[in-house]
Amino acid sequence: MGGIPIFSVVAYSGTGKTTLLEKLIPLLKERGLRVAVVKHDAHRFQVDREGKDSWRLTRAGADVTAITSQERAVVMENRPLPLETFLDRIRDVDVILTEGYKHGDWPKILLHRRATGKPLPLAPEECIAVLTDEKLETCTPCYPLDDVETVAELICSRLPLFGQAGEGETKRC
Amino acid sequence: MGGIPIFSVVAYSGTGKTTLLEKLIPLLKERGLRVAVVKHDAHRFQVDREGKDSWRLTRAGADVTAITSQERAVVMENRPLPLETFLDRIRDVDVILTEGYKHGDWPKILLHRRATGKPLPLAPEECIAVLTDEKLETCTPCYPLDDVETVAELICSRLPLFGQAGEGETKRC
Repeated sequence: MGGIPIFSVVAYSGTGKTTLLEKLIPLLKERGLRVAVVKHDAHRFQVDREGKDSWRLTRAGADVTAITSQERAVVMENRPLPLETFLDRIRDVDVILTEGYKHGDWPKILLHRRATGKPLPLAPEECIAVLTDEKLETCTPCYPLDDVETVAELICSRLPLFGQAGEGETKRC
Repeated sequence: MGGIPIFSVVAYSGTGKTTLLEKLIPLLKERGLRVAVVKHDAHRFQVDREGKDSWRLTRAGADVTAITSQERAVVMENRPLPLETFLDRIRDVDVILTEGYKHGDWPKILLHRRATGKPLPLAPEECIAVLTDEKLETCTPCYPLDDVETVAELICSRLPLFGQAGEGETKRC
């Protein structure tokens, strides 16, 4: 895994995972962290466009189609990859946040919104924190749904970068 | 570089690099090779679409935005990366073909089409082969522009996979 710490945000669709991550990423960036975010897409997503050169090369059978420019780069893996293998492709970041992947063996942050009318997707005890708008019977720390700052602190406190340099402090960020 | 052999197809824009690669990829796949193709895009390419979740996460500041599904995966590096670093992200293929990157330190195949009215982008002597519709004064082997089969053979003859197993043969594919 290249040793990069992974944290998953777990919730039913429509609970606000993307919105939470959208607020969380800048807070982690402010703390000097390089952040990767990985989203699971159950649908047949398409990032390429019909007729484009990269689309033509993919259609010709390339297992991997990549595009680079001065500013950015994209690697398309046109084949199934085990999640662990895929995550290992991500390098030079300090933390990987995933949206979904509730069965992964890494710390999870659970989101629960009463209005979705759904049960919890995971037992709170399997998570390091729960953001919820409903009181839950659990020993796992619970916070309001919009308390993104606490999630950022929690993540930082668990990063070697921050935790080990803390010299007695549990959190530096 | 993970030791994966790289070959560059070098030509001026409009000479037919993408068309050549489009024909070359299936020939290499037929020979059982896993193929990556890397395209340089001088323009500000955009694979993501405004409003999509991945677009929102990139806009929020993610250094890397990735999407996975059962069938495929995409890693977007939202930052400049040295080419060598980028190529090192490509794994589990037998050969990397690049479109462009004429300054790279790997074997190059030069394409020259008279009708473009342009000089050669590179000295033929810096290349392992030239596909051309015009007679050139060079000791580098020249082939017709549509002779993709020969390019496939040339690439295979230089792959350890084929070359070393050849036991006296110079080409097995």
